[in-house]
Amino acid sequence: MTELESLIREIPDFPKPGILFRDITPLLKDPAGFRLCIERMSDMLREVPCDLIAGIEARGFLFGSAIAMEMGIGFIPIRKPGKLPYKTVKQSYDLEYGTDAVEIHSDAVEKGSRVVLVDDLLATGGTMEASCKLLERLGASITLCAFVVELAALSGRDRLKGYKTESLIRFA
Amino acid sequence: MTELESLIREIPDFPKPGILFRDITPLLKDPAGFRLCIERMSDMLREVPCDLIAGIEARGFLFGSAIAMEMGIGFIPIRKPGKLPYKTVKQSYDLEYGTDAVEIHSDAVEKGSRVVLVDDLLATGGTMEASCKLLERLGASITLCAFVVELAALSGRDRLKGYKTESLIRFA
Repeated sequence: MTELESLIREIPDFPKPGILFRDITPLLKDPAGFRLCIERMSDMLREVPCDLIAGIEARGFLFGSAIAMEMGIGFIPIRKPGKLPYKTVKQSYDLEYGTDAVEIHSDAVEKGSRVVLVDDLLATGGTMEASCKLLERLGASITLCAFVVELAALSGRDRLKGYKTESLIRFA
Repeated sequence: MTELESLIREIPDFPKPGILFRDITPLLKDPAGFRLCIERMSDMLREVPCDLIAGIEARGFLFGSAIAMEMGIGFIPIRKPGKLPYKTVKQSYDLEYGTDAVEIHSDAVEKGSRVVLVDDLLATGGTMEASCKLLERLGASITLCAFVVELAALSGRDRLKGYKTESLIRFA
């Protein structure tokens, strides 16, 4: 187990029975671990062109904004519907049961902007795929989908196969 | 108008008619502005003892985690009910109509920890007051409530009068 992996706590049966949840709060609470995580994520970003960093509500905010400050790059939030105050564009996506959606401000990016998306966890990839589509509808190109944790068994990477995808900590 | 104030956008009638919403997304998108904001907030924190930084979901995450990394201090999240995976403690508070609540992991702080709370906006102060109570129930002491923006007309400072309270940008 790597130093960072040991800071991810396993919580059985959350949010429902049979799910083993990966809890990032011990990582956030450990200053050296959090800094190492942000530095390694920043190293990933340095390999691709990046004009803006987009973070996905809510845990993606924790990593995305810290990476944005570390890199000296602007940050844009992708949020649940109804949370952003200005004009928005919305993208729906399918869940196991029902649908969900994400929104972005319509003036969040300029056409041609190269954007790196950041979220804490790659599971099925539905939220990230919808977020990529949102940004593409605004004329941006996605240069990287960056995750702290990847749950490989859920094959989210297949759903994102049109995009360069990297993760810091990979669980089988 | 200060440099930082000019990066806060006014959105009339959000989230409902008659409310002038202060939108921080232009500040997040401006790398120099965001860095200046985080540096000034960090300067506030250097004036008080601080073992941990707590950020309030969701916009408080954007500033709290970046300050935590800048300062080399651990971060703990305060969230809406049902979002945190481990054992939690909950605190309800009154809204204009109805009630809301915030939660924290029961093992988030050690007894005697000195905590600085961070949120983007001080309006009526209800969420921050509830967050302070949560931390105190776990045995922590609050050394500072730090906000990016303060809406002075809403008198949130009165509600927080038992706590040291500071803001970076103050609107009458």
